[in-house]
Amino acid sequence: MLIGIDLGGMSIKGGLINEDGKIIIKKSLPTGAWRKPEEIILDIARVIDMLKKESEEKIEIVGVGVPGIVSHNNAFLEKCANINLEQIDLKKELEQLIGIETYVDNDANVAAIAEYEIGALKDYNSAILITLGTGVGGGIIIDGNVVRGSHGAGAEIGHMVVGENFYDCNCGRNGCLETFSSATGIGKYTEKLLKESDEDSILRNYEKITTKNIFDASKIGDKLAKNAVDRFIKYLSIGVVNFINIFDPEAIAFGGGVSHAGQYLIDLLNDEIKKSLYSKDVEIAKIMLAKLQNDAGIVGAAFMAKKL
Amino acid sequence: MLIGIDLGGMSIKGGLINEDGKIIIKKSLPTGAWRKPEEIILDIARVIDMLKKESEEKIEIVGVGVPGIVSHNNAFLEKCANINLEQIDLKKELEQLIGIETYVDNDANVAAIAEYEIGALKDYNSAILITLGTGVGGGIIIDGNVVRGSHGAGAEIGHMVVGENFYDCNCGRNGCLETFSSATGIGKYTEKLLKESDEDSILRNYEKITTKNIFDASKIGDKLAKNAVDRFIKYLSIGVVNFINIFDPEAIAFGGGVSHAGQYLIDLLNDEIKKSLYSKDVEIAKIMLAKLQNDAGIVGAAFMAKKL
Repeated sequence: MLIGIDLGGMSIKGGLINEDGKIIIKKSLPTGAWRKPEEIILDIARVIDMLKKESEEKIEIVGVGVPGIVSHNNAFLEKCANINLEQIDLKKELEQLIGIETYVDNDANVAAIAEYEIGALKDYNSAILITLGTGVGGGIIIDGNVVRGSHGAGAEIGHMVVGENFYDCNCGRNGCLETFSSATGIGKYTEKLLKESDEDSILRNYEKITTKNIFDASKIGDKLAKNAVDRFIKYLSIGVVNFINIFDPEAIAFGGGVSHAGQYLIDLLNDEIKKSLYSKDVEIAKIMLAKLQNDAGIVGAAFMAKKL
Repeated sequence: MLIGIDLGGMSIKGGLINEDGKIIIKKSLPTGAWRKPEEIILDIARVIDMLKKESEEKIEIVGVGVPGIVSHNNAFLEKCANINLEQIDLKKELEQLIGIETYVDNDANVAAIAEYEIGALKDYNSAILITLGTGVGGGIIIDGNVVRGSHGAGAEIGHMVVGENFYDCNCGRNGCLETFSSATGIGKYTEKLLKESDEDSILRNYEKITTKNIFDASKIGDKLAKNAVDRFIKYLSIGVVNFINIFDPEAIAFGGGVSHAGQYLIDLLNDEIKKSLYSKDVEIAKIMLAKLQNDAGIVGAAFMAKKL
């Protein structure tokens, strides 16, 4: 039996998971992200302990997915986004508290592992998961191994510069993929279009425009919305073809909130990619939607630890 | 004893190589790149045979580096740049002719393996070789394994889009790294600057301007040349930081003709990279010059086969 923990800014979610990736039971506690590190760590251990008590079998291993940079062979938390944890040997701390072998990984890597083990990427050896949410994240798997980087800072997929944009990325560079092809990116561009033109658009009827509004309006032929979606797709395609030219994976799956645009997104993306392939006669990666939803973090964390 | 073959547009170069990577003897024949495939293959076999006759020890394995896309586990030549060879099981053809186990790989991968085994990247586990020549090529090694891609089309490093350029890449896209940061790229931009301004420049004294002329002029303070070099460095840095954000390697080495600009190139690049790191407090890849020269193709081909 395995335990997977998904440490987020709001809650510490955990699951008791069998070898097939089935979640037997879930437990959670609020993160209290602003608290002292030792208090947060104690609550992670507490969630693990609650799950352990539910298991009749021995817990083989514990995996923890975190929104941060993890180094030293899945042990050391260098830094964490929005949670007061950094420069901590989280593996050691948790093992001392719970007495079970534990590994830590970046949450995007963990999500990719979940898709690879039991989701959309199950039938492929080398594949990429790209999550299109507030930002753009993802995980890269080559021949079954996650690309983590030599200092734990690899697979920052959203921070590949793919062009020039009208606003800078929060990483300090200009033109990062996530400034074009995330919910934030398409939102800012749509706002700009609405402000700078007086073109008619359904979107003018909304007080607060969501990514779903934009994609839905584009689907029914709203020109301004289609313009925004086309730009989103244009730069996402540049990013995807960059990945095809660099990694030549078997498959690329899309997850995250924006991927709820579904097959419409995939079809537009496939059309755009076909225009810009380097080796037009060589087979390329299959483009698809990710399968797993909110539980991917828990399941992926457990499998991450098991695979190490 | 190993044999390495470097198949180029002009010549088929081969070497008898010992386990330490020392070239015992070299042989070569002209490629005759326009000839029938079977004639070219026969001459590759002939070079191998000449080398075999020089060896007192048994030949363990043969490696062939080619300027093309190789698939099916280092066997099948999908296509080849400037040589009349495509859709050929080169491994099988050569093994039938010479009776020694043979493997084929892309020449950029082979050069990266040479640097990794006996060159500048010898002390690193995960590293990238970027060759700055007429185009931009390279090879990526993660934990000792070459990233070849699922269909043999990986590591096309020069065809990562990093911005918008004033001319299209021959791959059909706009903004590929090699349209900014190759000899061709800096040449075209310098030409444009000379034509569009009447700024004074040493470069106006040359009938035909080489990359070396441009870098030399920049070093001694020629403003127009410095402008061209700065743009070359700006986009190369975008590409390098993209690779750091994606792979987080331990080292990146630069080879190819343009790398003869030497430490000047590396210093400018390091300064530019420092400005644009995502995780400023995490250690990053060491930037350095490649070590091996013309024989890298032969040595790398032999080691490529040996590593498989």
